[in-house]
Amino acid sequence: MDLDHHGATKITIEEPKAHDSKGKGVADAPAPVKVTTKATKLHQGGGKKGIAIFDLVLRLSAIAAGFAATSIMGTADEILPFFTQFLQFHAQYNNVPTFQFFTIVNAITSGYLVLSLPFSIVCIVRPHAIGPRLLLMILDTVAMAITVSAASAAASIVYVAHNGSPYTNWNPFCQQFNDFCQQSSSAVVASFVAATMLLFLVILSAFALKRI
Amino acid sequence: MDLDHHGATKITIEEPKAHDSKGKGVADAPAPVKVTTKATKLHQGGGKKGIAIFDLVLRLSAIAAGFAATSIMGTADEILPFFTQFLQFHAQYNNVPTFQFFTIVNAITSGYLVLSLPFSIVCIVRPHAIGPRLLLMILDTVAMAITVSAASAAASIVYVAHNGSPYTNWNPFCQQFNDFCQQSSSAVVASFVAATMLLFLVILSAFALKRI
Repeated sequence: MDLDHHGATKITIEEPKAHDSKGKGVADAPAPVKVTTKATKLHQGGGKKGIAIFDLVLRLSAIAAGFAATSIMGTADEILPFFTQFLQFHAQYNNVPTFQFFTIVNAITSGYLVLSLPFSIVCIVRPHAIGPRLLLMILDTVAMAITVSAASAAASIVYVAHNGSPYTNWNPFCQQFNDFCQQSSSAVVASFVAATMLLFLVILSAFALKRI
Repeated sequence: MDLDHHGATKITIEEPKAHDSKGKGVADAPAPVKVTTKATKLHQGGGKKGIAIFDLVLRLSAIAAGFAATSIMGTADEILPFFTQFLQFHAQYNNVPTFQFFTIVNAITSGYLVLSLPFSIVCIVRPHAIGPRLLLMILDTVAMAITVSAASAAASIVYVAHNGSPYTNWNPFCQQFNDFCQQSSSAVVASFVAATMLLFLVILSAFALKRI
C-alpha cells in the first residue's frame, strides 16, 4: 500500500493534490450529516425518555388493575343463608373453571408486570437501549393476549350468569348470588382495564422502537 | 505539527507527497466506515425484506384461518329430528349472543387483514418505510386483542356446552347438538390460530421496526 502510494505520488504531483482536496471534500461531507444525526439523537432521546417514563406510569397502573382483578375474583365468595333451587348454596370463584383460569392468568400477568419494572426503569435510564425495549414489547404482547383471553372468557360466563341463555336452558344465577356476581363483574372490568393498559404499552413500545 | 510539515514540504517535494498520501489515507478513513454502513443497511434491508415477505405469508394464513372461523361458525346449524328436554330443537350460532359476537369479530378481523395486504406489500417493496409498518403493527395489535377476546369468550361457552357447569346447574347440550358443538369448537380453534398468527405478526413488526 505504502509503496503504491509512493509510486503514484512520484508520477503526478498536481493530480493527487486535486484529488486530495476532492477526497477531503468528500470526507468532510458526512460531517454536517453527523452533527444533524447527533442533534436528532438528542431530540429522539428526549422523546424516548418521555415515552419510557409514560411506560413506567402505565405499567404501575396496569399492576394495580391486575392485582385488583386477581384479588376481587379470588375473594369472591358468597354463602347463602337459605336453600335455593340450586343444590349448593356456597358460590366461590373456584367452582367455575373459567373463573379459576381468570384468577390464575391475572395473577401471572400482575407478577410479570412487577418483574418487568426494572426493565422499564432501564429504558428510562438508557432510552436508546433496544434489547430491553424489544423484550418488554414481546412479553407485553403475550401478557396482553392472555389477559384479554381470561377477561373475555370470564365476561362471557358473567354475561350468562346475569342474563341466562334461554336457548341452551341455562338459568341466570345472579339473582341468587348477587354479591358474588357483582364481585366477579368488577374483577372482569379490572382485568379489561389491565389489558387495555397493556395494549397501550405495546403501542408505546412500537413508537419507542421505531427509528425517526 | 502542520507548520512543521509545511516546513518539511518546502524543503523536499517528496515528503508532502508522502504526507499527501498519508492525508489521503486519513481523509479516506471514514470512507470504508461509510461503505460498512451502506453494507449494513443493505444487509438490514435484506433482513427486513425477509421479515416483510414472511409477514405477507403469515397474513395470508391468518386470513384463511379468520375466514374459516367466520364461515364455520356462521354455518353452524343443526335441526334435531326429535324433541328433547330443550324447548327448541334448532341450534344456530345466532341463538347464543357470544357466538354472534364471535362471528362478527372474526369477520371484522378477516376483512381488516384483507385490507392490510397492500400495506404489507408496500413493506416488501420498501423495507425501510416506517409509516406503513407502524400502522400495521398498531392495527395488528388491536385485531389480535379483539380476535383473542372473541375466541376466548366462545371457548368458555363451548366448554360449558361440552362439560356443563354442575355448580351453576347449567347442563351440557353437546350430547343433543353434537354437530353444532363440533362446528363451533372447530371455529374456536380456527380463531385461536388466527389470533396466534396475529401475535407473531406483531412480534415480526417489532423486529422490523427496531434499529439495528
